[in-house]
Amino acid sequence: MNKIIGVIGGSSVDQTAYDTAYEVGGLIAKNDAILICGGLGGVMEAACKGAKEAGGTTIGILPGSYIGDANPYVDIPIAAGLGHGRNLIIINTAEALIAISGRFGTLSEIGFALQSGKPVFGLGTWDIDGVIACASAQEAVDKIIRRGESRI
Amino acid sequence: MNKIIGVIGGSSVDQTAYDTAYEVGGLIAKNDAILICGGLGGVMEAACKGAKEAGGTTIGILPGSYIGDANPYVDIPIAAGLGHGRNLIIINTAEALIAISGRFGTLSEIGFALQSGKPVFGLGTWDIDGVIACASAQEAVDKIIRRGESRI
Amino acid sequence: MNKIIGVIGGSSVDQTAYDTAYEVGGLIAKNDAILICGGLGGVMEAACKGAKEAGGTTIGILPGSYIGDANPYVDIPIAAGLGHGRNLIIINTAEALIAISGRFGTLSEIGFALQSGKPVFGLGTWDIDGVIACASAQEAVDKIIRRGESRI
Amino acid sequence: MNKIIGVIGGSSVDQTAYDTAYEVGGLIAKNDAILICGGLGGVMEAACKGAKEAGGTTIGILPGSYIGDANPYVDIPIAAGLGHGRNLIIINTAEALIAISGRFGTLSEIGFALQSGKPVFGLGTWDIDGVIACASAQEAVDKIIRRGESRI
Repeated sequence: MNKIIGVIGGSSVDQTAYDTAYEVGGLIAKNDAILICGGLGGVMEAACKGAKEAGGTTIGILPGSYIGDANPYVDIPIAAGLGHGRNLIIINTAEALIAISGRFGTLSEIGFALQSGKPVFGLGTWDIDGVIACASAQEAVDKIIRRGESRI
Repeated sequence: MNKIIGVIGGSSVDQTAYDTAYEVGGLIAKNDAILICGGLGGVMEAACKGAKEAGGTTIGILPGSYIGDANPYVDIPIAAGLGHGRNLIIINTAEALIAISGRFGTLSEIGFALQSGKPVFGLGTWDIDGVIACASAQEAVDKIIRRGESRI
Repeated sequence: MNKIIGVIGGSSVDQTAYDTAYEVGGLIAKNDAILICGGLGGVMEAACKGAKEAGGTTIGILPGSYIGDANPYVDIPIAAGLGHGRNLIIINTAEALIAISGRFGTLSEIGFALQSGKPVFGLGTWDIDGVIACASAQEAVDKIIRRGESRI
Repeated sequence: MNKIIGVIGGSSVDQTAYDTAYEVGGLIAKNDAILICGGLGGVMEAACKGAKEAGGTTIGILPGSYIGDANPYVDIPIAAGLGHGRNLIIINTAEALIAISGRFGTLSEIGFALQSGKPVFGLGTWDIDGVIACASAQEAVDKIIRRGESRI
């Protein structure tokens, strides 16, 4: 079955983070993995756009109870209705996470991911013990794909 | 965008309910809608199997935190980690629900759906004021498709 | 430890239901049990008011993320931030439920309670197989207290 | 109404962290505030024990669906049934948080608290921008009490 890779990061970002997220999304799709994210703007939108333009599949786990809130590059919108709590669903579902930029929401997601034993690869994000810092989108996606794990 | 139709019902069912759910899943797929359900056995598995064999897409919102719990006909497993609370995500995400057979879990889902203003079409399930009883899988799916609604 | 008894019912109710809920709250307090409910208006407010005026303790599990939403008779407001999903917390926490009047939200709570194996005593509510219909507040509270269970 | 103060931290801790949490719990109670925490062992148990022995009230928001999991110093056990997601309820309900020691779970709670705009006072915990580091239990509790806020 296809890997599911999570992308986490802020909903308002600068151009560098947006471009990085777009590139990450494209690489996830080219590696036949499914992208899961929070389904809104910023890093989430950029990653979904990149994945869609590379022919991939995108899942957006939305905070509210209305699927119309998803950004236009989400194929599968899921209306969790849990507010920030929806982040746990992303982490439970993904086999690994890529964190891009972000503030406190991203910090809490990193904490949950590491608590759940899911690896987190970082691109310009929190420098936390446990996060595997990467120099490029290519390095982050390669490290996940090369982990050689398939979900069963 | 494709409609998302929810199928709710028990995880242990008799052959009649299984066959009905299988037929419902197939009809959802043939109408280019996406099936969302709880991702486990019984009615959920039968509906997913029917949808997959008709070329459709299936989403399973799982109660636990491990995507490996999904039945083999789920394309997109979502590990909600909320126990029974995962039912609300199905209801928030679907534009309409088809309830097949089922006991108290299905009753609670019907209650949530009606509380949320989502129409519920029933096939051999609880005879509750608000549930639109249908005589066949064909009638239930036709009524949803003909509602002429598209999610925006 | 004190029993925790849940009261479920609609947020907008007629005078009869309000009076019944008020009486139920008072009887819960007089039996040294703690009242848990959804913390808002209608049945929830009436039951909390009855319990407080009889010297009891009240817990309100609120749908939103702000404790200021609680009715003035809630001692312990809990901001679940889960919308309708907060109902499951009431059911998980209570050892038995009293359902008073109510529409679809109450129906979903009854379904969850019965699915979770918690007894439901009904006062003018849904006539569902599994709900133990009672003729008065006194009968409902007595039946719970006399169950002789203590939580451990 | 009484302030509600949250205590977050690991379930397995060394003696120093246990003693600090015990002292924090006692000071919360002596200041007529209510303690809310995750209801299990380690920092949570120490804080509840300190609060109870000082005559206070303690709330435990449990991850599972069984109130019997609470430590013996919890007055009001709430069975959230949300796993790690229960942490958000603590943060939504408390007006301020004291973080003691802890690993990734505590990190995620700190992230959620700061994202939600709730102040976090730290005692030997993560050195994150946004956390107000304190030298003693007394300093942490004083700073919260002196904030002069009352919940409305």
